[in-house]
Amino acid sequence: MSASAAIEPRIEPTSAQAARQAHILDAAEACFVRNGFHRTTMQDLAREAAMSPGNIYRYFDSKEAVVLGLAERDRERGAVLVEALERSGDRRGVLFGILAAYFTEMSRGAAILRLDLWAEATRNPAIGTMIERGDAEGRTWLIETFSAIAPGCDAAGLFAALAPLMKGIIVDRALDPHYEPGPAVRQLLALIDAGLAEKAAA
Amino acid sequence: MSASAAIEPRIEPTSAQAARQAHILDAAEACFVRNGFHRTTMQDLAREAAMSPGNIYRYFDSKEAVVLGLAERDRERGAVLVEALERSGDRRGVLFGILAAYFTEMSRGAAILRLDLWAEATRNPAIGTMIERGDAEGRTWLIETFSAIAPGCDAAGLFAALAPLMKGIIVDRALDPHYEPGPAVRQLLALIDAGLAEKAAA
Repeated sequence: MSASAAIEPRIEPTSAQAARQAHILDAAEACFVRNGFHRTTMQDLAREAAMSPGNIYRYFDSKEAVVLGLAERDRERGAVLVEALERSGDRRGVLFGILAAYFTEMSRGAAILRLDLWAEATRNPAIGTMIERGDAEGRTWLIETFSAIAPGCDAAGLFAALAPLMKGIIVDRALDPHYEPGPAVRQLLALIDAGLAEKAAA
Repeated sequence: MSASAAIEPRIEPTSAQAARQAHILDAAEACFVRNGFHRTTMQDLAREAAMSPGNIYRYFDSKEAVVLGLAERDRERGAVLVEALERSGDRRGVLFGILAAYFTEMSRGAAILRLDLWAEATRNPAIGTMIERGDAEGRTWLIETFSAIAPGCDAAGLFAALAPLMKGIIVDRALDPHYEPGPAVRQLLALIDAGLAEKAAA
């Protein structure tokens, strides 16, 4: 990960530092959602966090590093859910529960930030690498889970059919303040159900 | 359309003016794709079009007006395709041909611009209104066409199932320089086929 090594958080967190880092990430999320990733400056971020710019730079040396921190936090939160899946006997039930919760509970702000980062990824290689890495992890995890639930199913083909639908749900969530995720989530789970039931014709 | 009335092109086009307007729109498309909608200034646009800023302002009085001009041009191009559909006896064949061509031939630049405008729409009411208007027109046209091809099908439900998939295809096209649209387009047409075959259980 050479592209991301340069933008990793600068200091090893103690618990007070970890709390301060989390505080900065919350402030960043609020700024990015309100004004967009590109429009937000490190100064805006310091103001939102009620910290001096110099203090912010002790934790993150660029806006890209802040976004990487947000992505890392998302990944840790996801890992907690995945652990529940690994422990549970009912992999299918937990998979469906995780996907339904993810798309039903996603805030409009989180969806707007994602949309912003996709747009940014087309021009900013550090963000592009981060998005690719997150996508690749999600892809690997879903394909492995499909294969574990239904050995012999076309797990990669099923993922390919779902991927644009999942991205489109996030776009709809971002664009519509009154978005109702129920129908799209039901469609997503029905597609997975059908895909898992269909064994590969080999 | 009170929000868009303020940002309509300023002058009634003669054929020389129409050509100049088209030239500005081409330049704008190139700037927006390269640097993003938000980052592009009217000065950048003038430089790209090799015109004076004052001359650009004779045609479009804001960046929003330029984007509205681009949307209007897309709409006119779409109308030509729709006309072919109306003239043809084979509505299903022409519908499938139009959708396949739209998603297969969409350039990465066009997809990036769309992604950018979606992100902008979440914060800029003029752009939001423009996106909503385009989406509503597409929705009306597809639902009417589904109903004409297969009277009694759940046209609105079918559209709702397709809408996020179509948006997700555009996101994938924007993010991946080597995007291969074939599988997603086949999936889209297969979903429409299934939806048209399924009569509403009333």
